[in-house]
Amino acid sequence: MPRELGKDLKPQTKFNLDEYLARIGKQVDTALDRLLPAETTPPPTIHKAMRYSIFAGGKRLRPVLCLAACEAVGGKPSAAMPLACAIECIHTYSLIHDDLPCMDDDDFRRGKPTSHKVFGEGIAVLAGDALLTHAFALAATKAEYVKELAHAAGSERLIAGQVQDLENENRQSTLEEVKTTHLNKTAALITCAIRLGAMAGKASPSELKKLTRYGQDLGLVFQVIDDILDVTSTKEVMGKSVGADAKNQKSTYPKLLGLDKSREYAAKLIADAHRQLKPFGQKAAPLAAIADFFLTRQH
Amino acid sequence: MPRELGKDLKPQTKFNLDEYLARIGKQVDTALDRLLPAETTPPPTIHKAMRYSIFAGGKRLRPVLCLAACEAVGGKPSAAMPLACAIECIHTYSLIHDDLPCMDDDDFRRGKPTSHKVFGEGIAVLAGDALLTHAFALAATKAEYVKELAHAAGSERLIAGQVQDLENENRQSTLEEVKTTHLNKTAALITCAIRLGAMAGKASPSELKKLTRYGQDLGLVFQVIDDILDVTSTKEVMGKSVGADAKNQKSTYPKLLGLDKSREYAAKLIADAHRQLKPFGQKAAPLAAIADFFLTRQH
Repeated sequence: MPRELGKDLKPQTKFNLDEYLARIGKQVDTALDRLLPAETTPPPTIHKAMRYSIFAGGKRLRPVLCLAACEAVGGKPSAAMPLACAIECIHTYSLIHDDLPCMDDDDFRRGKPTSHKVFGEGIAVLAGDALLTHAFALAATKAEYVKELAHAAGSERLIAGQVQDLENENRQSTLEEVKTTHLNKTAALITCAIRLGAMAGKASPSELKKLTRYGQDLGLVFQVIDDILDVTSTKEVMGKSVGADAKNQKSTYPKLLGLDKSREYAAKLIADAHRQLKPFGQKAAPLAAIADFFLTRQH
Repeated sequence: MPRELGKDLKPQTKFNLDEYLARIGKQVDTALDRLLPAETTPPPTIHKAMRYSIFAGGKRLRPVLCLAACEAVGGKPSAAMPLACAIECIHTYSLIHDDLPCMDDDDFRRGKPTSHKVFGEGIAVLAGDALLTHAFALAATKAEYVKELAHAAGSERLIAGQVQDLENENRQSTLEEVKTTHLNKTAALITCAIRLGAMAGKASPSELKKLTRYGQDLGLVFQVIDDILDVTSTKEVMGKSVGADAKNQKSTYPKLLGLDKSREYAAKLIADAHRQLKPFGQKAAPLAAIADFFLTRQH
């Protein structure tokens, strides 16, 4: 596609994100189906459990971001597909372990019983382990992909965020601590998805830098909006119970900054995200539309 | 050290394995200390938990096998050290998760309280996750190392073995099923340790093939002897309770074959292991001594 095409378009308003998410999400589903061991592979129990959680209705936002970042730097999205699937495996493993009785103890996710409710705790732990391991098998086309993924998923990023989340319950945290937790728990994997996609698309160092910052903006906004919705939304709209943060006496952006300032902060982050995307022109239309979606989502 | 030195020695009897294990084990400890995040790295909890289990008194058999395999093909053991440490991270993660209440529910390992007894179940799950992830960071010098590791640790090998172990309790298994479980649960990671060491030492395809078979022999013997000691040894000698297999009505080699035939089988496997090592001459003296040790160990 010629780079000049539609430079005057306003991607934020004209891009059909619903269609894009549905179309690319379907491609991700097809690839995941192909890249995960079949249910009948021995021992079937573990492969059923892996697939149960992978196909439990996730929105595939992280893999879509990975593929869109590849597209933004002029790469072929198919080059990034195994990495997009690796990211989804890591995301799903972290949800399975997060839902365990010894962690957040959630019986349902997106209206479906969680892994340990269906398969028992032992298999749920192992299914998470297996998805984490499989992610590295999928990323093992280049050593540098594995380094990125292991760093983002490791004890100083994704897992650090989960530890901080456990430790922040029922205690007062500063704004700085809340931000660190969000950067680790959410922004690290989102940023990694985008960086891996860009790397697969052979991004230049300067392109990679801009997309990395876009990813961090996006990751932070995701959590700020999550905190806001936990205060302002209803169970009906969210499809899950709200008010959990207040109940757990969790320090959140709305609690520390107030609702208005939290919304302002999120809008400022998204404005910065758009600034990072500017040099990419129309090729970054999907990334720009996703940024707006992160800011305006209602659930 | 000159390669010709002592070619006429009989490694099985003359090699000082105790000295070798102590010396190389110490090198592994030093490397692990260097290659794991410091306890003070935020968040300290997770890094304390990772180090607690890594330094809980393991014998470092797998990393030693990795380094000895590198030596056997004429490589410099230092080239294999990060891989040896990656293997120990995987081994330790699998023990932490295996000991969880929802799995084997063990409060002690090697006389020390298990991770979840010290740090709680949530942190124990995350410490296992973090060690698994860190293993891939350490192996990410070459994509082919990561592929080997992800395969051996994945849902069709190591994790398959743990699933089969969970499913085989309180039911009758055939000899073939017991062997498959052992190959997955124990032999896969031992073989992977040896293969990674050989690969780091630039093994030829034929050398790699022989060492792979040596590893499988060793892995099977490890479990057969484990089963035998569970019948014949005492709590005092083993340092842990015995008779667990009979209590759990587990199908084992002694139960299916009898003690004498089980011992014969183990001896046959070790004879095959020695046959595989023959072409390597004196350079494989450590591997040969370890094979004999696997057969004759009393605990």
